[in-house]
Amino acid sequence: MLSATDNGILTRTGAGTPMGDYFRRFWLPVALSRELPERDGPPVRLRVLGEDLIAFRDTEGRVGVLDPRCPHRGANLFFGRNEECGLRCAYHGWKFDVEGRCVDLPTMPPESGFRARVRAGAYPAREWGDFVWAYLGPAAQEPPLPELEFAVLPAERRFVSKKLQQCNWAQACEGALDTAHFSFLHMPVWSADDAVAAAVGRSSVDRERTRWMRDDPRPEFEVARHDVGFVAGAARKADGDDRYWRIAQFMLPNHALTPNALPGENIHGQTWVPIGDEAAWVYCYTWNPDRPLTEEERRSYRKGRTVHAEVDERWVPLRNRDNDYLIDREDQRKRTFTGIQGVSEQDAMIQDSQGFIADRTREHLGPTDAAIIEFRRQVLHGARDLAAGVEPAAARAAAAYRVRGGSLVAHRTLSFADVMTRRFGHPLGRVVG
Amino acid sequence: MLSATDNGILTRTGAGTPMGDYFRRFWLPVALSRELPERDGPPVRLRVLGEDLIAFRDTEGRVGVLDPRCPHRGANLFFGRNEECGLRCAYHGWKFDVEGRCVDLPTMPPESGFRARVRAGAYPAREWGDFVWAYLGPAAQEPPLPELEFAVLPAERRFVSKKLQQCNWAQACEGALDTAHFSFLHMPVWSADDAVAAAVGRSSVDRERTRWMRDDPRPEFEVARHDVGFVAGAARKADGDDRYWRIAQFMLPNHALTPNALPGENIHGQTWVPIGDEAAWVYCYTWNPDRPLTEEERRSYRKGRTVHAEVDERWVPLRNRDNDYLIDREDQRKRTFTGIQGVSEQDAMIQDSQGFIADRTREHLGPTDAAIIEFRRQVLHGARDLAAGVEPAAARAAAAYRVRGGSLVAHRTLSFADVMTRRFGHPLGRVVG
Amino acid sequence: MLSATDNGILTRTGAGTPMGDYFRRFWLPVALSRELPERDGPPVRLRVLGEDLIAFRDTEGRVGVLDPRCPHRGANLFFGRNEECGLRCAYHGWKFDVEGRCVDLPTMPPESGFRARVRAGAYPAREWGDFVWAYLGPAAQEPPLPELEFAVLPAERRFVSKKLQQCNWAQACEGALDTAHFSFLHMPVWSADDAVAAAVGRSSVDRERTRWMRDDPRPEFEVARHDVGFVAGAARKADGDDRYWRIAQFMLPNHALTPNALPGENIHGQTWVPIGDEAAWVYCYTWNPDRPLTEEERRSYRKGRTVHAEVDERWVPLRNRDNDYLIDREDQRKRTFTGIQGVSEQDAMIQDSQGFIADRTREHLGPTDAAIIEFRRQVLHGARDLAAGVEPAAARAAAAYRVRGGSLVAHRTLSFADVMTRRFGHPLGRVVG
Repeated sequence: MLSATDNGILTRTGAGTPMGDYFRRFWLPVALSRELPERDGPPVRLRVLGEDLIAFRDTEGRVGVLDPRCPHRGANLFFGRNEECGLRCAYHGWKFDVEGRCVDLPTMPPESGFRARVRAGAYPAREWGDFVWAYLGPAAQEPPLPELEFAVLPAERRFVSKKLQQCNWAQACEGALDTAHFSFLHMPVWSADDAVAAAVGRSSVDRERTRWMRDDPRPEFEVARHDVGFVAGAARKADGDDRYWRIAQFMLPNHALTPNALPGENIHGQTWVPIGDEAAWVYCYTWNPDRPLTEEERRSYRKGRTVHAEVDERWVPLRNRDNDYLIDREDQRKRTFTGIQGVSEQDAMIQDSQGFIADRTREHLGPTDAAIIEFRRQVLHGARDLAAGVEPAAARAAAAYRVRGGSLVAHRTLSFADVMTRRFGHPLGRVVG
Repeated sequence: MLSATDNGILTRTGAGTPMGDYFRRFWLPVALSRELPERDGPPVRLRVLGEDLIAFRDTEGRVGVLDPRCPHRGANLFFGRNEECGLRCAYHGWKFDVEGRCVDLPTMPPESGFRARVRAGAYPAREWGDFVWAYLGPAAQEPPLPELEFAVLPAERRFVSKKLQQCNWAQACEGALDTAHFSFLHMPVWSADDAVAAAVGRSSVDRERTRWMRDDPRPEFEVARHDVGFVAGAARKADGDDRYWRIAQFMLPNHALTPNALPGENIHGQTWVPIGDEAAWVYCYTWNPDRPLTEEERRSYRKGRTVHAEVDERWVPLRNRDNDYLIDREDQRKRTFTGIQGVSEQDAMIQDSQGFIADRTREHLGPTDAAIIEFRRQVLHGARDLAAGVEPAAARAAAAYRVRGGSLVAHRTLSFADVMTRRFGHPLGRVVG
Repeated sequence: MLSATDNGILTRTGAGTPMGDYFRRFWLPVALSRELPERDGPPVRLRVLGEDLIAFRDTEGRVGVLDPRCPHRGANLFFGRNEECGLRCAYHGWKFDVEGRCVDLPTMPPESGFRARVRAGAYPAREWGDFVWAYLGPAAQEPPLPELEFAVLPAERRFVSKKLQQCNWAQACEGALDTAHFSFLHMPVWSADDAVAAAVGRSSVDRERTRWMRDDPRPEFEVARHDVGFVAGAARKADGDDRYWRIAQFMLPNHALTPNALPGENIHGQTWVPIGDEAAWVYCYTWNPDRPLTEEERRSYRKGRTVHAEVDERWVPLRNRDNDYLIDREDQRKRTFTGIQGVSEQDAMIQDSQGFIADRTREHLGPTDAAIIEFRRQVLHGARDLAAGVEPAAARAAAAYRVRGGSLVAHRTLSFADVMTRRFGHPLGRVVG
């Protein structure tokens, strides 16, 4: 439970808000690189933390992220012409490069020297891990890019996508850290026979995991803090004396890795970037540290498996808030707990259902909400510190973002630290070597 | 004419408003029973007096009306699973029965005793007359159900339906009590020949009524108060020394009966339940005290005759505010006074046209507005009394809701009381015997 | 650049605002005459300066502009019946003529004398130049109709139309006075070959104009004030020692004439009438002082050439804000500077793109913005004067509205006054003789 004040701080990210200032100390994904496929191609509209922006790729392949207002009379540069290393306003031909410099100003006498003094608003932009990232904060505080493992690896070992989330960023991020919900939200119904269970979990390993999650809805949580966030393990009873550990990572301010990968399996992560306070883009990534992803894997992600949603051409999930996620009540009665297809869509449904901005003043939290509580503590702490003048150390700890999440079946006597070391080679999940 | 203050009191029914508190002292229809056709079927969303609610029918057939927010973390129980006498939240499996009691709480240790202390918000719900009714007020003041005649009778003698009204409840209710408007709104045009008149009014009785209403646009009103509202008679000149009386009933806070039934004909009524302040559900009922309704009658009501509208699958009238009620100007010129099909739709058009909330500060009322004036007086009085601590007596006078409205042709020397007694056997229209 | 206060004054025209009061001292077009094609036909809804109104044509062909609220109980007269020189409310039959007088009042006793005392709200209305004009100001200040030349001429010499503008009136009007933008917004791209140029400009005269405008993006502006606004000339280098003059007219408060007509060519003008503050109707007119327009000319205007847009049946441009004006990026790359079809649509795009209400506090104006600066000065001055009690003289100077705009190629030594006199026979563009 949060106070109304804290709930407001957690969820509001417009310019000048504490959390808005905090987000503006980190690089944020603002587009897929493939949304700007060609040099001198059409600009695209962005909306990030309540700010309207445009992005374009210039003649040399560089991406610019600009305030869309032409400084002359405010015409929108989205309708401008992308030509010869700059975007030219369609009204009177003022032209700006990827950094916002005015490179042509045909309506003013050259001798006025005005061209050198006028600039379009622009934010630093980089391509990294097949995303376009922008930094919306003060120039003096520009940090390095976070070394998330999916971005560091060769492109053939990752798959990235994007999907619309129709609610506030924070409750969606909480949903990813709340691994207790797997015992219900993503389950086949109790009465479903083996055939159904087999259909949902296709391998014997999947069937076992499903059984362990269904049979223990009250996992025990352990949380360990690190330089850029925390790692949260949740242990359920498995067979015999074993426990089934599911370990999620959170990296400040808005990245989370899923807890499902057993050793050798692909790892998944998501980054929530507020559009405004009632919607967010979720940037999704899957990677394998050791091998290229197969074409079959890519195909399944494109169709919407794991964190990737099945989306339309504007990245809106086909099953979304506006169509009740195409809930099938007959399926809910007989086969799956929600009647909604897709793990990503089940998550979106339940997160959106908390309201456009969840009211955290009326909650009743318990021990299984440990990761959520830690998430709120860290981001509220970071926003409050910054408001008091303390810059976030995490933003500069680029290498510390190279962590992994995943699963392990281990004897019940093993501590969380032992489990982490056995699974990842490091007690906090850092990538070693 | 009302002051702006009184207009606000009359029309605002949100929690904490005077009229909102007043409505919350009465049972209100909130759904048709047939919207919840099966046990353990899908929940339905409701919005009543500005509050979002859900209703579901449990394994034993009982209906629950709940606050949709799961007390754990606010996920919406609409997406929950309706199973074994309770609705289970899809997020972490908390489960609640029709009265909001928590009957399963899998994420908390049983020994914590927490389950007994947590409840979902719930309102008392009953089925009565093929409607689901809810009581949204303080438990200590819960009244009996109103004994409206349609609800008391065997089901085969009634037909019920529901339709969306796209304006504030009060002006729609006023429209039902204002029987003077029949001389225009529902008329064939003056110049229309007998063929048109015949088409509009199918029998010779209908033709006579139509002629009397057309020829006397200034009926004389008489109003008599009773324990749960008032009865309003409007007398028009008929043939010879006769007068054509049309008698409507109003029952607090939001029920009205139509004035059209001649002895032996079916009786119609409507109940307006605010969704918010700019829309309402109208619950409609037709009954015959003495015999089952015929299949042909039911078919005609389903197609939208009398108070029943022609609606889509979500109970939205096919001819509505958004499509200008499919007004046909050629028809308006040559055949009917509005060019709009359907008595219910003609009423909705003119009521909606007063604005989403009618501005009563600029009216010019006259003698034919007597019933409207009495309606406002009674409900404003009731709301003001309650604000001063006086509970509404009408809410407890359940038996006094058993009244009828209708028509009579009577000699001009007969008083209103005589007419009432001759038509209904009781001077206020109470059902006797 | 304007202060936020001045930007607010310039753009807000609701009742009681300074600019709203100023507009209410002038006759304004509120409909095309052809929107009310027949006597006793259907009324039409209007929205003017934030006020909801209706217009209807009565049995004798007169047009009335009324407040839609029936004074009885506020039902909307739009749904009324237009019959025998009056509009009859569909609720209880109260009937009003084109001046708002109550001509029938069936629900009140005739002896009450009430009919003579009740009126529907009504504004003076006139037909003039194939538009319906209304005067929304105080009766004592009602001015004569402005003698715009297109309206004074015989109907066969003019063509009028109407189109929706999806932004504030003022920035759209500025766009018409800003003739510098022709060097970009309406141009073929620099690299386009002669074939493209030929397609855009069909005649050799057109090709020359296009070349002169393309080659000189920094025309020199001259502004001369007159009794009802100002005339603005912009001179570009032409061939040899010639200059290509383009001369636009502005007439208070909201009329502008385009600068393109060479001697003998048709003249075009536009009048912006605010719907609210975020949209306007643009009333468009083309005329030839000396001859009837040809059927081919009318056909081309109907299809959307010059100031006339290609619109749907509700006067909404087919290429509009909601569909990004059907921008074709390939066309923008290879052929035209915007990739958008139609001069009117190119203008609408760039004007709308400044925002629903342009923020003039962040501009960087230069010498080519001289006409815009004068426009703001005059209308702000007029609104401020009126607020101080000085009635606008322009509203009474009806004859001074008879001016023309157009083009001339002239030797560079000729002054603006000389150019005006040579082109129009008058130094301010007044129609002489």
